[in-house]
Amino acid sequence: MRQSKIFYITCKESPKDETSSNAQLLIKGGFIDKLSAGIYTLLPLGLRVAVKIEEIIRQELLALGAQELSMPALHPKENWEITGRWETMTDLYKLKDGEKEMALGPTHEEIIVPLAKQYIKSWRDLPLLDDNGNFPLSLFQFQTKFRRELRAKSGLLRTREFQMKDLYSFHRSEDDLNGFYLKVKEAYLKIFTKLGIGEKIYYTYASGGTFSEFSHEFQLLTEAGEDTIYICEDCLSRGERIAINKEIIGKVDICPQCQSKKLKQAKGIEVANIFKLKNKFSAPFDLSYANQDGEKQNVLMGCYGMGVGRIMGSIVEASNDANGIIWPVAIAPFQIHLISLDEDSSAQKIYRDLQADGYEVLYDDRPESAGKKFIDADLIGAPVRIVVSHKTTQQSGVEVKQRKSKEVEIIPYEEIIKRMKDYVDIK
Amino acid sequence: MRQSKIFYITCKESPKDETSSNAQLLIKGGFIDKLSAGIYTLLPLGLRVAVKIEEIIRQELLALGAQELSMPALHPKENWEITGRWETMTDLYKLKDGEKEMALGPTHEEIIVPLAKQYIKSWRDLPLLDDNGNFPLSLFQFQTKFRRELRAKSGLLRTREFQMKDLYSFHRSEDDLNGFYLKVKEAYLKIFTKLGIGEKIYYTYASGGTFSEFSHEFQLLTEAGEDTIYICEDCLSRGERIAINKEIIGKVDICPQCQSKKLKQAKGIEVANIFKLKNKFSAPFDLSYANQDGEKQNVLMGCYGMGVGRIMGSIVEASNDANGIIWPVAIAPFQIHLISLDEDSSAQKIYRDLQADGYEVLYDDRPESAGKKFIDADLIGAPVRIVVSHKTTQQSGVEVKQRKSKEVEIIPYEEIIKRMKDYVDIK
Repeated sequence: MRQSKIFYITCKESPKDETSSNAQLLIKGGFIDKLSAGIYTLLPLGLRVAVKIEEIIRQELLALGAQELSMPALHPKENWEITGRWETMTDLYKLKDGEKEMALGPTHEEIIVPLAKQYIKSWRDLPLLDDNGNFPLSLFQFQTKFRRELRAKSGLLRTREFQMKDLYSFHRSEDDLNGFYLKVKEAYLKIFTKLGIGEKIYYTYASGGTFSEFSHEFQLLTEAGEDTIYICEDCLSRGERIAINKEIIGKVDICPQCQSKKLKQAKGIEVANIFKLKNKFSAPFDLSYANQDGEKQNVLMGCYGMGVGRIMGSIVEASNDANGIIWPVAIAPFQIHLISLDEDSSAQKIYRDLQADGYEVLYDDRPESAGKKFIDADLIGAPVRIVVSHKTTQQSGVEVKQRKSKEVEIIPYEEIIKRMKDYVDIK
Repeated sequence: MRQSKIFYITCKESPKDETSSNAQLLIKGGFIDKLSAGIYTLLPLGLRVAVKIEEIIRQELLALGAQELSMPALHPKENWEITGRWETMTDLYKLKDGEKEMALGPTHEEIIVPLAKQYIKSWRDLPLLDDNGNFPLSLFQFQTKFRRELRAKSGLLRTREFQMKDLYSFHRSEDDLNGFYLKVKEAYLKIFTKLGIGEKIYYTYASGGTFSEFSHEFQLLTEAGEDTIYICEDCLSRGERIAINKEIIGKVDICPQCQSKKLKQAKGIEVANIFKLKNKFSAPFDLSYANQDGEKQNVLMGCYGMGVGRIMGSIVEASNDANGIIWPVAIAPFQIHLISLDEDSSAQKIYRDLQADGYEVLYDDRPESAGKKFIDADLIGAPVRIVVSHKTTQQSGVEVKQRKSKEVEIIPYEEIIKRMKDYVDIK
């Protein structure tokens, strides 16, 4: 894409009403625009990142045998009365449509449980997790959620309207729920590895509410985190990233995984969570099945959330420097930022060649100063920057630099395509 | 996909509270589920269709040089007060967030105009449409829209919550707006051709409001249509599908394109519309630019809508028979419905081979009767049905039938892959 044509809104100064790094950097980099507190537009650059995150998540869930659907945002009051959450959930947006009262969905248990009830009649509708390619029934969506968030001050980390992936699973036995729960855990870890943040993710024990001993959060380690977690140093020394959320410290004071007492305090952002709901929602909706003896049993459920915008915001919090964002390759809006300094014909050829080879290239063809172009490139944060200028042309080459490093290399024209894979691996 | 595993909810009888064919057929076929009047879940089969429609639209808009973004659904009251539509738009959902009043966006002029204002400063930010690859600034999104629809009785044709593509363009001259408007018209016709309904689409003159002489609708010709249109028979005889919406008959009584008076009444569904907004929204928001003489001018705008669910519903209305839906190949949930009647090992091989060759196959592996399987296949409406049974195996082949035809052909096993492209062209 030519930078002269992209719909790219930036402000030179840090937005005054934003205190979080992610909001400041995403706004300055032209990724998002703030409409109102906790409500943002994804600009073309930001949407590119969000779509990549979404697609990485989708592929891993499909591999789990989960099926994608799309539920509405407008929910009838009755559904929320059945679980009692019409009154108890304080961040529910409510509205009236004539006499009818509705909520804007902050989550979808109240919708998916009655939906599953139409489908699940007998144990035959609830396949068990086994090695023959059978998977429990599990359904997911990417959907806009709404929450009346009182303190919407953390950029994309805490918004009133956000894109979220929610997955729900349905089981006939606790064993099966437990087995699938672990499969989702593995899939989530794989997703974070693909997103390029696997090394920073801690599988964190958190409160399980009244129905389970624990739920689990995936905490991204960063000083900017809102949550306090306790990392198990013994697990870490064995290469396992395990933590305990502060909210259960007291109830739990050793690592639930290895019983070590060597816990170290740290800060994290919860980027995903998994939860054994058991019959918490199936009971009020009477979601049941007839077992092999014809007896009625409650379906057991798990739910598994992951916020797309929250992941985007967290990665920015954890991966930036004074000059801007440093995107992991897998979700960068463009893999290569090609900057022409009065060498447009050479640059255009490289632009075409790189694209033909499958790279996503942002080509800065604007009549701006070198300084301005470098500043914008750092703000946008593409993993690799290529500069073509009189100076590099005299050396018959281009200047290549990784966003995360300060080192610069001159690569001859004829080697650019071949060498690019050392810089940015897109295969 | 194996049919035994798909999350597939059907009811044997026509849903009593739905009067439209599209809702009845989509519910019976397991594509959608009704949550409340005018509010539907897209089940896995329905989501597959929606995603295909969306992708066809997206590709044509990107080819126009349009850029994709994603604006919020929650809109501050202030934005809607600026245009006066907070009071005048009767189908606006309103809600309160503490003291703050918000609307759920039924359209996004009130959001995109102030957004564009941050970007457009001078004439340089408004490239002209020309043959050198310059395109006017145009922005689009696929977004959930909300409308307090009083008569939500037409299935996916008139819903309270719906997925819509909205495109907005920004121009410095009326000539440029007119040129781009025609480009969008051509792109829309291309989209409908790709969707497999090009032959049924009429470019229809409709009211332009106070700002333009006409707007234009794309009407899908079907007896089930809500709109009355007048088709120009002279244009039609020249292969051009032109019509006039009844709403402007009286003001206009001849074909605006060829001045013919030979008009024939028909019924249609509006599946898209294009509108020259001119300065209707740029004036209240003071969206202006400095021209080459430094004078301030209002930006001129066009807006171009297309409803994803509405297209899905319309196609069902226009393409069905007594047994169910007949999907065009391009948007069918699966291109091939493979039915095994006690010949699972042969069927499995064919299933693998067809998928390896790039076909999307729904494989009915359920232990159901032939009758039940045929009924479900007609309801789901995949373009091609393949049956493998004892009988066909004795003839060393399979039985192939197009959904839209009654003719059945026996194709030998070894020719299936080769011959399939005569039935369903996916390249």
